[in-house]
Amino acid sequence: MQIAEPLQIAIEELSKLPGIGRKTAQRLAIHLLKTDLESVEKLLSSIHSLKTNLRFCNRCFNISVNELCDICLNQKRDHTIICVVEEASDVIAIEKSNEHQGCYHVLGGVLSPLSGIGPEILHIKELLKRFETEEIREIILALNPDTEGEATSLYLARLIKPLNVKVTRIARGLPIGGDLEFADEATIGRAVSGRIIIE
Amino acid sequence: MQIAEPLQIAIEELSKLPGIGRKTAQRLAIHLLKTDLESVEKLLSSIHSLKTNLRFCNRCFNISVNELCDICLNQKRDHTIICVVEEASDVIAIEKSNEHQGCYHVLGGVLSPLSGIGPEILHIKELLKRFETEEIREIILALNPDTEGEATSLYLARLIKPLNVKVTRIARGLPIGGDLEFADEATIGRAVSGRIIIE
Repeated sequence: MQIAEPLQIAIEELSKLPGIGRKTAQRLAIHLLKTDLESVEKLLSSIHSLKTNLRFCNRCFNISVNELCDICLNQKRDHTIICVVEEASDVIAIEKSNEHQGCYHVLGGVLSPLSGIGPEILHIKELLKRFETEEIREIILALNPDTEGEATSLYLARLIKPLNVKVTRIARGLPIGGDLEFADEATIGRAVSGRIIIE
Repeated sequence: MQIAEPLQIAIEELSKLPGIGRKTAQRLAIHLLKTDLESVEKLLSSIHSLKTNLRFCNRCFNISVNELCDICLNQKRDHTIICVVEEASDVIAIEKSNEHQGCYHVLGGVLSPLSGIGPEILHIKELLKRFETEEIREIILALNPDTEGEATSLYLARLIKPLNVKVTRIARGLPIGGDLEFADEATIGRAVSGRIIIE
């Protein structure tokens, strides 16, 4: 049996989404087919509004409604501390922790020579340009603790340090609620080497 | 930080999809925000076309472009054997096996008193009605091998047997490529009790 063409096309389009394989796409398409038209139209219009009403901040590339995002416009935040992250979703994650009172800079990815992602694709030159107009005291590198994130952190640290700015990196160690027995060697190694004095 | 409203709404709508939690919905929304408008519009129009161009077959409730689906219209298929499945996706799965040459009947779910799904919500009366107009020799019950699927199979068998029709159920046993050592007791139990003579 040939799958009906509109279903086939919807499955193909849905399976282009990240983390959605062919089977999940088929399940989603059949679910949408069974859902009432009103709910499906609400979903479609919410995605459409996402594309038409949101953009990326001109300064930090965070998700924004206006030219500059709410964080860049907020005068209560410390504009001398910039936290560098990979993706806009990382801004949301760090904001939830309520621990960072400064601003952000979203790189849009990490260096990955194998996938053809070089420094020119990321928003690195825009970060360097911010030093010309903003008074920046500290750059916090908050990239993912994987090989590519570490390599990108090193690359950025080498670029930024000569500008006489404090460059820090978020700590690696045991996650809160984690179990030492089940942690991997690399995490335990980092937790030990990064130990701090109890005062 | 408050998440921008259009993003918030899109995340909420996406997380209504089956198997998509809040985190996945956020990842999908941010992915769509980063994707070029043309690709997103292709996705949206494919879902819209799904809703406007497809319907369910009037006879068997399979996915269909016309009033009757391709399988019901196909005169080369055996219209005296009807395979009863839970969802339209099961039709696709069985068709891929190329083992069933008859027709189908999609129930639209299984009996589940706890979720409030009784016989009147499923397409059971439509199945019984088919006996009035069609010459049916065999009903193959191909529901999922879980508690609700088994209960629904029993319920259907009791309804259909008095109509003097052969009622069969697809076999339960070890999956092809599976490993006896790692199979659960219930599966091994069914495989043993359902053993067949090698001729």
